[in-house]
Amino acid sequence: MEITVREAARELLRRNHITILCHQKPDGDTLGSGFALWHTLTAMGRNARVLCSDGLPENYAFLAPGYVPADFKEEYVVAVDVADPVLLGDLREQYEGKVDLCIDHHPSNARYAARLLLDDRAAAAAEIIWLLLREMGAEIPGAGRAARCIYTGIATDTGCFRFSNTTPRSLRIVAEMIEDGLDTQPVNAAMFESKSRSRVELEAAVLSGIRYYYQGHCAVITVTRQLQERLGVDDYQLEGLASIPREIEGVWVGVTIREKDGCCRISLRSTEEADSSAICAAFGGGGHLRAAGCTIQGSPEEARELLLDQIGRALNMSPENR
Amino acid sequence: MEITVREAARELLRRNHITILCHQKPDGDTLGSGFALWHTLTAMGRNARVLCSDGLPENYAFLAPGYVPADFKEEYVVAVDVADPVLLGDLREQYEGKVDLCIDHHPSNARYAARLLLDDRAAAAAEIIWLLLREMGAEIPGAGRAARCIYTGIATDTGCFRFSNTTPRSLRIVAEMIEDGLDTQPVNAAMFESKSRSRVELEAAVLSGIRYYYQGHCAVITVTRQLQERLGVDDYQLEGLASIPREIEGVWVGVTIREKDGCCRISLRSTEEADSSAICAAFGGGGHLRAAGCTIQGSPEEARELLLDQIGRALNMSPENR
Repeated sequence: MEITVREAARELLRRNHITILCHQKPDGDTLGSGFALWHTLTAMGRNARVLCSDGLPENYAFLAPGYVPADFKEEYVVAVDVADPVLLGDLREQYEGKVDLCIDHHPSNARYAARLLLDDRAAAAAEIIWLLLREMGAEIPGAGRAARCIYTGIATDTGCFRFSNTTPRSLRIVAEMIEDGLDTQPVNAAMFESKSRSRVELEAAVLSGIRYYYQGHCAVITVTRQLQERLGVDDYQLEGLASIPREIEGVWVGVTIREKDGCCRISLRSTEEADSSAICAAFGGGGHLRAAGCTIQGSPEEARELLLDQIGRALNMSPENR
Repeated sequence: MEITVREAARELLRRNHITILCHQKPDGDTLGSGFALWHTLTAMGRNARVLCSDGLPENYAFLAPGYVPADFKEEYVVAVDVADPVLLGDLREQYEGKVDLCIDHHPSNARYAARLLLDDRAAAAAEIIWLLLREMGAEIPGAGRAARCIYTGIATDTGCFRFSNTTPRSLRIVAEMIEDGLDTQPVNAAMFESKSRSRVELEAAVLSGIRYYYQGHCAVITVTRQLQERLGVDDYQLEGLASIPREIEGVWVGVTIREKDGCCRISLRSTEEADSSAICAAFGGGGHLRAAGCTIQGSPEEARELLLDQIGRALNMSPENR
């Protein structure tokens, strides 16, 4: 049943011993939303805890320093930014069918919770949390931890206000929090201005090996198994890599080939000159017009050849222009 | 004489044949401010033109497609985002002492103009321009070119709302323009998601050659003359490079050494663990606590050795920990 912010606020105000669930492979929005709610409920004297199948990653520890989930007999379960029970990961078995309230901004929400607070115009779930806390009559001091959590959710889901999902409301919420004492700098430094040494090495290797095709309109980067093993990089450290080739001047299709488990994971990014999802569909993949993915069996070289054929066709360019 | 937004608006409304001056090596704020004013004055039926000693660089051509400065007998001169006449570059000789109105946000403004509209809390001069155009009673349609210019000024001067100069007002002006139809995406793509091929090659080379000292708390990148010549990179393409070493986890002092004209230009960026300006002062340079620069005679290797000594002292670390 879909409910309003006001109804969700009333519901939460009547509850105690609340478990808040985040999605697996947690990002700034699910954790920011969960911990903003947790900080506020705790400050209001309620028992609450945040659970995530992958814990609280170290780079997000600043959201709730020293956090340890409380042990209590839960009476109410809230999921934040979790579009589908499958995204609960290891917590799915325990919590599927038991979520009382889901707070989300994904239009694809699977409507699995008893009550759903959904606002798909919100740039981030944290934006809805802000509205909800306000409705609950909670204080959100700008210099407090809840404000920092909300800012983290909004800033990370909008690429620090760079993506097209940034709304006037996202900006105004942040404006109000800054006015009220929020310091955005520690969050921005941690989220947008911090790279591990192995990530830097990875970028150096990948950029050095970049290859151009079709008069510079297609750029391909390759992350071999060997490179991943040498640098010891994990999935987290590969995040955002796929956007690099498309950001080069003149490039219409940016391809990232990642060797994994004996096959190749492909990420495509394109400008309006090409349809990424159509190109990936030829290999059984899919996605959006400007960002899509697929898996191709074989070596990175074989995958590249197959992709270049398909991309040439999509760009209406003949193989000799490759 | 310092004047208010209202006084500046009245002044401009009484004028025609207006020359708008931008600073040399123009950035998004001086050009965005200048062309926002130009678009609006032109739409109001006035004769106006924008002049800059370095012209309108191609990457900013979207601010005023096909722009050619009009030829007329000027009656009024406005400088935007120009803190000092020396920043007029080649236009200095012609215009020094002849600026009727300066619109600026730099606290260091040299107060060289007959009238000065200064707001040093503004993140960008474009923020002041927005207030001024409003006060003039001008329409600033969100989907129009003036709004795009104002957005460019604010977004570039705040690092797309990432820097600490971002104010509630910056965010609210942008919120209002988006609500009114502004599409931020073409500007963001051009300003923040676009790199030339040679810049990519430069980053690859520089990242590959990065060196760490003092248990990883100091990182040094070097841009040799040879590298610059091989890639044919200019000053513009080196912009922002200096922030790279400081953004690596654990790094307190990030050093960028650029070989130029037989000596080395040094850029330092630091966290709160070190004072960049004090380190640079030892070499006759200066700047801010977290960002400073200096020039050192000698080869990049010689400069690095001298800097590392100084940095070790600043970090209270002995040479054997280097």
